[in-house]
Amino acid sequence: MTPSRPTVSPAARALLERSAEIHDLQNAAALLSWDRQTMMPPGGHAGRGRQLATLAAIVHERWTDPGFADAVEALAAEAPPPGSDEAALVRLSRRALRQATAVPVDLVKALALATSEAQRVWVDARERADAAAFAGPLAEVIRLRREEADALGWTEHRYDALHDTYEPGSSKARLDAVFGPLRQRLAALIERVRDHASDVDDGPLRVPLAPAAQEAFVRQVAADLGYDFGRGRLDPTVHPFCQAVGPGDVRITTRYAERFLPTALFGTMHEAGHALYEQGFREEDLGTPLGTFASLGVHESQSRLWENHVGRGLPFWEGRYAALRAAFPGAFDDVPLERFVRAVNRVAPSFIRVEADEVTYPLHVILRYELEVALLDGDLAAADLSGAWNEGMRDLLGVTPPDDAQGCLQDVHWSMGAFGYFPTYALGSMMSAQLWEAIRRDRPDLDDEVREGRFAPLLAWLREHVHAPGARYEPDDLLRRATGAPLEADAYLRHLTAKVDALIDAPADA
Amino acid sequence: MTPSRPTVSPAARALLERSAEIHDLQNAAALLSWDRQTMMPPGGHAGRGRQLATLAAIVHERWTDPGFADAVEALAAEAPPPGSDEAALVRLSRRALRQATAVPVDLVKALALATSEAQRVWVDARERADAAAFAGPLAEVIRLRREEADALGWTEHRYDALHDTYEPGSSKARLDAVFGPLRQRLAALIERVRDHASDVDDGPLRVPLAPAAQEAFVRQVAADLGYDFGRGRLDPTVHPFCQAVGPGDVRITTRYAERFLPTALFGTMHEAGHALYEQGFREEDLGTPLGTFASLGVHESQSRLWENHVGRGLPFWEGRYAALRAAFPGAFDDVPLERFVRAVNRVAPSFIRVEADEVTYPLHVILRYELEVALLDGDLAAADLSGAWNEGMRDLLGVTPPDDAQGCLQDVHWSMGAFGYFPTYALGSMMSAQLWEAIRRDRPDLDDEVREGRFAPLLAWLREHVHAPGARYEPDDLLRRATGAPLEADAYLRHLTAKVDALIDAPADA
Repeated sequence: MTPSRPTVSPAARALLERSAEIHDLQNAAALLSWDRQTMMPPGGHAGRGRQLATLAAIVHERWTDPGFADAVEALAAEAPPPGSDEAALVRLSRRALRQATAVPVDLVKALALATSEAQRVWVDARERADAAAFAGPLAEVIRLRREEADALGWTEHRYDALHDTYEPGSSKARLDAVFGPLRQRLAALIERVRDHASDVDDGPLRVPLAPAAQEAFVRQVAADLGYDFGRGRLDPTVHPFCQAVGPGDVRITTRYAERFLPTALFGTMHEAGHALYEQGFREEDLGTPLGTFASLGVHESQSRLWENHVGRGLPFWEGRYAALRAAFPGAFDDVPLERFVRAVNRVAPSFIRVEADEVTYPLHVILRYELEVALLDGDLAAADLSGAWNEGMRDLLGVTPPDDAQGCLQDVHWSMGAFGYFPTYALGSMMSAQLWEAIRRDRPDLDDEVREGRFAPLLAWLREHVHAPGARYEPDDLLRRATGAPLEADAYLRHLTAKVDALIDAPADA
Repeated sequence: MTPSRPTVSPAARALLERSAEIHDLQNAAALLSWDRQTMMPPGGHAGRGRQLATLAAIVHERWTDPGFADAVEALAAEAPPPGSDEAALVRLSRRALRQATAVPVDLVKALALATSEAQRVWVDARERADAAAFAGPLAEVIRLRREEADALGWTEHRYDALHDTYEPGSSKARLDAVFGPLRQRLAALIERVRDHASDVDDGPLRVPLAPAAQEAFVRQVAADLGYDFGRGRLDPTVHPFCQAVGPGDVRITTRYAERFLPTALFGTMHEAGHALYEQGFREEDLGTPLGTFASLGVHESQSRLWENHVGRGLPFWEGRYAALRAAFPGAFDDVPLERFVRAVNRVAPSFIRVEADEVTYPLHVILRYELEVALLDGDLAAADLSGAWNEGMRDLLGVTPPDDAQGCLQDVHWSMGAFGYFPTYALGSMMSAQLWEAIRRDRPDLDDEVREGRFAPLLAWLREHVHAPGARYEPDDLLRRATGAPLEADAYLRHLTAKVDALIDAPADA
């Protein structure tokens, strides 16, 4: 689907050329953002905020150029057959155009500046565990995002306008329908675990390991899964993320906790899963509206699949435990394999979302979802966030964060204005379980392959069914094509239940 | 001179706002370029080239927007008094506007793409020491730059059009007038040294030192000179450079030769000198046409001053030799201070410009100058560059490079299309000597201050006379204000002659 493809019509070519220019600008902005989170010195903040605001304004200017809409409608007038690339191009372009043109340029600029400022303040507030310091910038971001939601338009709930930009076709009504029962089922699961929590000892994971040795190990793991370092890189950061900054350049980040290997290990597998998705788009789609992710939920399904279904599984460690022991001489000699795997699967309520176990994880998401709906509705003031957060943690997980850094300041998202984003994490976890069941059906030897470190067949399945299609299909459509069913929570709950059963049924750690 | 300054007229404000937007785009491009040379994986090249071309085209679009010229002329119509910031703003904007609008956008895009490609090929060709592989992309860059020179316009020589973009007010005629006599005087100096070259032994510098220890040492040196790491960073790269990527973010790079400390040490002092200049612009000028360097020659005068006049001087090492010995335990214990200083001042013809001694250095520049004039005129074909280079090295320096990597492929400049740039290195060296004499007149205790590591007074002098003015004055005007005289080579030749005298007069190393 490149502009130079000979079969492409003049209308499609004009559209692709405009898309490619926007894509270049978005990639430039992505690099500025990556740099800010990995490399930029403190003095760079004010200038970087300005630069991102300027790029955002130009992207907006390009979208709202009447020639863009003309190009889309010219292609639509050719009536491309349903299911064709051209039809997908029209659908995706119309959607992007609608979102971009609905928002006035002044609001675009104001949001870029406000979120730059909020991120700067958030870093500092988080360091000092001081939610009050963050309340002002957060309130401003909320105010502007509310304006943006109204500009985008909505029918049932203002939240839908923002959430839909991350998860096409999803809505607050759908989330409520999914999260309500999920919350109850998880509460029951956690109740079962609670009596047995002390049976699982994650002490073996809480040994000091030099960050440099951790980095060497996780780098090898990422490469073995299939992450192409010739088209990416791995750097340390405060809040790990994966960021494509161009075709052929998809970067991942992680952080190293000196006394807790899983932070870097599963964090890297998680981000590598995201990156494998982006490295798996069709080359000819890159720079076009087709060569991108279907939704953030689908994106998260890929990270969760590699992190949880591969990385926390017994087969993976049966194949890699010797390498782990060799990478950290002495550290795991007295820890039997089965005990290590139990430790990395320990279920226990905790404070930090990105370090939460698989069973309690969705409750962290549900908390954020409920709070951001309240913030956006004005039912909760930014100044009252800390209290509401801690109350929610007590209700949902039975724990109270010791401070705001381990509470409402732990995530970068709201400082970036990303309201409506968190639910995609839970949706992605659900998708990953559904995909995993489908893969097992298609590949009965999957466990053996993973055990032997042969990840290529698994990656090939994902490439074919999830990565290569890019944004051609809406998430539910993609999932139906890949698994035979639209998104549902059953596979996810089966997976979590099996996990809890395994922990409870095994003998307690000494 | 910020747009929000209350005394700024509406015309000036409109102009500054347009300038600030272009400045943001240029900074974004600068970061993309910095990243390409320090961080980017190989797979990123094609996309990065496209992104830079897109940004260049938008910058061009902004310059050529009729509103820009209108804003300049509206301010000019206010007839700001000569010497005022507003008058400088009109002068600088007219100049930038003339340069930007003279070149058709297609040529701007073609140059961005061709130089991206040429840089990619150059890296590879240099690695394989294969000039032939680089000839094609180089020829294409030359062809486009020739077109650009003609579009910019020139009267005496096509070279002037390009050279003037780096060194306002300079020309081929002026360079010939300066370089001709300089070449002769240097030949005589080198003749004097030749018989004594074996008297100076740089063996003490050719000991293996761990790159990590080198990095720690040079990082401390840069910080001590006054380089602000809170507004910059230091990274390894193939071809070291200094790059501002925003107000408050001026980055430097260096490279580490395991068996030759001066590469990283003086390289870092050199780039830190550049960065001190950019970190010394007035805060209120940043993002305006005033808050930038007067010329590349002036820029180079700052790097050379810190590298050579400070860093290779006896006082500097009298103050820092103990720290050097402590940083590299054992490596310099048997090397007396005076012998170390003689070693870092050794004069001997060599292959690599950036590692050349101070006396032979300008001849490396003159070689490049003569070759690039011939390439641009069509008197020399890109395919014949390697032969002409080696012949020139024999004529000027009496040595023949063993391969193209140490010959015509050693510098990045031509792959970036930077024809007319090299002479600014020699001009800058001349300026640095002239400034140094002026500083010594103003500060009789300069040697003591340098010996004691008190660089603040020196930096304050440079801030006042060179940095703070930014681009307000043309280079000759700036130099006259700072030193009382326009640029001349006398101070430079006095400095080099004294250097040679010191080497010859001292007893030979054992």
